[in-house]
Amino acid sequence: MSIDLEIAQAASLKRITEIADAMGVRADDLIPYGWTKAKVPLPVLEQAEQERTPGRLVLVTAMSPTPAGEGKTTTSIGLADGLNERNRRRVAAGEPPTGQAVLALREPSLGPVFGMKGGAAGGGYAQVVPMEDINLHFTGDFNAIALANNLAATMLDNHMHHGNPLDIDPRRVHINRVMDLNDRALRNTTIGLGGVNGGVPREDHFDIVVASEVMAVFCLATSLADLRHRLSRIVVAHTRDRIPVTVEDIGAAGAMTALLRDALSPNLVQTLEHSPAFIHGGPFANIAHGCNSALATRAAMALGDWAITEAGFGADLGAEKFLDIKCRVAGIWPDVVCVVGTVRALKYHGGVDKTDLEMENVDAMLDGMVNLEHHLTVLQDVYGLTPVVSLNRFPSDTDAEIEAAIAHLAELGVRAESAEHWAKGGEGCLDLADAVIAAAAENEERGGGNPRHAYDLASSSVEKIEQIATRIYRASSVEVPPAVQKKLDRFVREGYGDLPVCIAKTQYSLSSDPSLRGAPEGHVLTVRDVRLSAGAGFIVVICGDIMTMPGLPKDPAAYRIDVAEDGTISGLF
Amino acid sequence: MSIDLEIAQAASLKRITEIADAMGVRADDLIPYGWTKAKVPLPVLEQAEQERTPGRLVLVTAMSPTPAGEGKTTTSIGLADGLNERNRRRVAAGEPPTGQAVLALREPSLGPVFGMKGGAAGGGYAQVVPMEDINLHFTGDFNAIALANNLAATMLDNHMHHGNPLDIDPRRVHINRVMDLNDRALRNTTIGLGGVNGGVPREDHFDIVVASEVMAVFCLATSLADLRHRLSRIVVAHTRDRIPVTVEDIGAAGAMTALLRDALSPNLVQTLEHSPAFIHGGPFANIAHGCNSALATRAAMALGDWAITEAGFGADLGAEKFLDIKCRVAGIWPDVVCVVGTVRALKYHGGVDKTDLEMENVDAMLDGMVNLEHHLTVLQDVYGLTPVVSLNRFPSDTDAEIEAAIAHLAELGVRAESAEHWAKGGEGCLDLADAVIAAAAENEERGGGNPRHAYDLASSSVEKIEQIATRIYRASSVEVPPAVQKKLDRFVREGYGDLPVCIAKTQYSLSSDPSLRGAPEGHVLTVRDVRLSAGAGFIVVICGDIMTMPGLPKDPAAYRIDVAEDGTISGLF
Repeated sequence: MSIDLEIAQAASLKRITEIADAMGVRADDLIPYGWTKAKVPLPVLEQAEQERTPGRLVLVTAMSPTPAGEGKTTTSIGLADGLNERNRRRVAAGEPPTGQAVLALREPSLGPVFGMKGGAAGGGYAQVVPMEDINLHFTGDFNAIALANNLAATMLDNHMHHGNPLDIDPRRVHINRVMDLNDRALRNTTIGLGGVNGGVPREDHFDIVVASEVMAVFCLATSLADLRHRLSRIVVAHTRDRIPVTVEDIGAAGAMTALLRDALSPNLVQTLEHSPAFIHGGPFANIAHGCNSALATRAAMALGDWAITEAGFGADLGAEKFLDIKCRVAGIWPDVVCVVGTVRALKYHGGVDKTDLEMENVDAMLDGMVNLEHHLTVLQDVYGLTPVVSLNRFPSDTDAEIEAAIAHLAELGVRAESAEHWAKGGEGCLDLADAVIAAAAENEERGGGNPRHAYDLASSSVEKIEQIATRIYRASSVEVPPAVQKKLDRFVREGYGDLPVCIAKTQYSLSSDPSLRGAPEGHVLTVRDVRLSAGAGFIVVICGDIMTMPGLPKDPAAYRIDVAEDGTISGLF
Repeated sequence: MSIDLEIAQAASLKRITEIADAMGVRADDLIPYGWTKAKVPLPVLEQAEQERTPGRLVLVTAMSPTPAGEGKTTTSIGLADGLNERNRRRVAAGEPPTGQAVLALREPSLGPVFGMKGGAAGGGYAQVVPMEDINLHFTGDFNAIALANNLAATMLDNHMHHGNPLDIDPRRVHINRVMDLNDRALRNTTIGLGGVNGGVPREDHFDIVVASEVMAVFCLATSLADLRHRLSRIVVAHTRDRIPVTVEDIGAAGAMTALLRDALSPNLVQTLEHSPAFIHGGPFANIAHGCNSALATRAAMALGDWAITEAGFGADLGAEKFLDIKCRVAGIWPDVVCVVGTVRALKYHGGVDKTDLEMENVDAMLDGMVNLEHHLTVLQDVYGLTPVVSLNRFPSDTDAEIEAAIAHLAELGVRAESAEHWAKGGEGCLDLADAVIAAAAENEERGGGNPRHAYDLASSSVEKIEQIATRIYRASSVEVPPAVQKKLDRFVREGYGDLPVCIAKTQYSLSSDPSLRGAPEGHVLTVRDVRLSAGAGFIVVICGDIMTMPGLPKDPAAYRIDVAEDGTISGLF
């Protein structure tokens, strides 16, 4: 039995109507999915945005992670629970309240649930529940996204089959079909076989749902009309004359929007401590921007005094895209950035071997600070933000290590707290909550809140990449091979020159070489390829291997998942 | 604007809790999906089955249809509304009530919604609502089924990729991946390409979800444990030594059950006149048994005084499978069979050209009666059932035609009524409702209700096919080629000899030749192929072309589907 599932199944959940009511949303305004999940309709959110003062936005990001991950999701959950616990205590003590925190997180993909990594609903005493539902196709959003994506692919192939009036080149199809599973055998396929009645033969590929542009579009859409508009401009293919063919051209935009209409409303659940949590959307953090939907983040801001959200991978990738892509689209800007670090990751960047991370090593930990410090500097200097460090405590961490880390960061003038939400829930995050409250006050005092970006949209794509590479990745230069430059020139000719860039590179290093730990500098960022995501509204810049359809391991987690006769699920983690 | 959608969008729906309450199900016992849809959990249904007298079961089937279909779904809806309207009128008049009718129908597939035929939520004033939701992925059941099916396929390919310890033959894989779309280009594919990291190369095929064995299993399962058991025994491949490989062997049964756990509870919605309707499951009527889930039919019987359900295609296919497969598994038996006929179909079987069906032709209509009469005779003589004919009225039907048809059937001693539910709702089915009530009383008087089947399970597969072919299809004999007989012999060796047979043949003729109208006899039924559905629990006998992955037409319905800024969907029909 997994500890996470055991804790989640033992939890006593409140009705979702009660959770909503505490945010001032009437039960009748919800769209219930069972008794502990609901969607909040967009008109309800729009009204709240018009009528209320938006809550403070806290972005949870991380230092460059180890392969195990440093716990951004659990920290986000712990911080929300910590803020709400602090608020309850203050109210109980007759002190002025600090306000209610509302989470905005990504939906889990079934790929890792059945593969190796497991679910993504937090862990220990920092979880969102109902854990099984959230991890097992939830309210059906990913299925709606898969259907919408696959409908476009089907209609494209159908167009080619029925005479191909647009003269689409079957060798220049850009949209892949998707499935929300790790299905290695579908990475490279040929389709349309079997003769005249079987469609037009061509090479094809399947991606996992979270890697689709429809997912990215879904997560950046700010309204139903904006969703339809973004879907319509997705470039699905080119003609033989190299003219872009969009979703609008193949007549799929309306039907795709119909499939996604209900899914677009954010899903509301709760943490183990009954903090409200919007769990909505979940695009890849490499070929997309890696954050929950813009609508969910705005919902958390509209309905909470504190909105806690996270961005994928480390700050160089997740926070950069959150700030330069998502914030621009959604019209939001964080008040505080919470950077998750761990003693393990600090030691890793200090040169300790992966197998020795559980042994105390204060010196190596301090050596690894260069990585965390660089992320903090970028957030402060490039973006003008106020960071707080959360040291997500693991059982192997020693007091000496934690204390040395906090002391070091204090010398740099950065608030840092040990966070023990995994073991203790919100109570383990009270200090972190206080640090966030203090940082928000400081940010307000110094007039923070004005968006600053790493690059101007009016710059060329190469200039944008250079800004990110030199200011954030510490690269000395960017190398753009002629074939890639040619594609970028074509994007400009096609009218996409003003789009932001979305860089896909390893999360394990500031550089594009995963073996370069710490804070490497002077390296060259080589752009291997670029791809247009015209619907999502960015140009994907590929600087490393990216895998858009994972495979299952030899011993997949699916082997251990089962259901008892009474419906109790086991084996999820 | 489509008339069906216009009527549906103008409808005033009751809360689903109110609909459930009228059946004696408490709001708290439902699992709501929005305010007008809910799932009824299996324990609630089991308790009702234990505590209440089951309602009378009415099976709605049809004569051999024209390509346009004769309206089984609208008739089922109209009949339920008619029975409930009759009940209300009797209660209002101080007469003894006739009891409440509850529907059990199939869920629509997205293939026809985006293709040519349109949705499947009834039509005119005989609809189940919310129409858009029911037609557009509803409560997610089909997505759960697709995910469960595709997980098994993925785990099978993953097994072969990681050393293939079971020695599965990549040329003998039986499970196809599925998608709930008409996607012609996926009919014939090659997968596992791209080298060592891309899986094991092999030929593959995708089916539409409704054609999957997982769908058939889902619809025949009588409990969660039975679902898991049926899933586990699905044969997904053979080894190089020709040993069957099951879902259990590849370790997927538990995870598949987890994906399907919530979906297995029947979905409750309402008709335009607020009759309760369970809409759940929807397997193909050729390679599967073509009825809604066994659990939904049993739910309608447990909670209603009348349970109205339908079976796909004409009575030779749909009713036969309902009676010989589904009734055996679910432990149910109809009290009355309502056979849907139309003046159009009667004229068609009387030899009238498809283009002339709207012109009055009483003689041809009477000539075509041979088809309807044969279906009635089979239901009476083979199965011992009490049939009622519903003449589903179309605008082009003349009074002379309808009157002649009713008079002709009256001479045969069969109750027949003109039904005008499309134009008038339940009010247009009051006579039909009365006929069904009278037929049920007659059936009870003569001690009806004992199941009788077309064949014994202990007979050989060929004997079973012969029984159906000669008694129901009017064939003189059955031809089983040696290669097919060899496969049947293998099924016996593998332990599947006692399974019922599920015949896939054209629905347009009693024979396997769609051009033979009326009631052809003396023809030979040639078995082209047989397939094992060990999980569903039948042997599929293929006697014609079957298409398990349809394609989109040149001008698909998807082109006209759209969503306005306020979320209103247009173009569905």
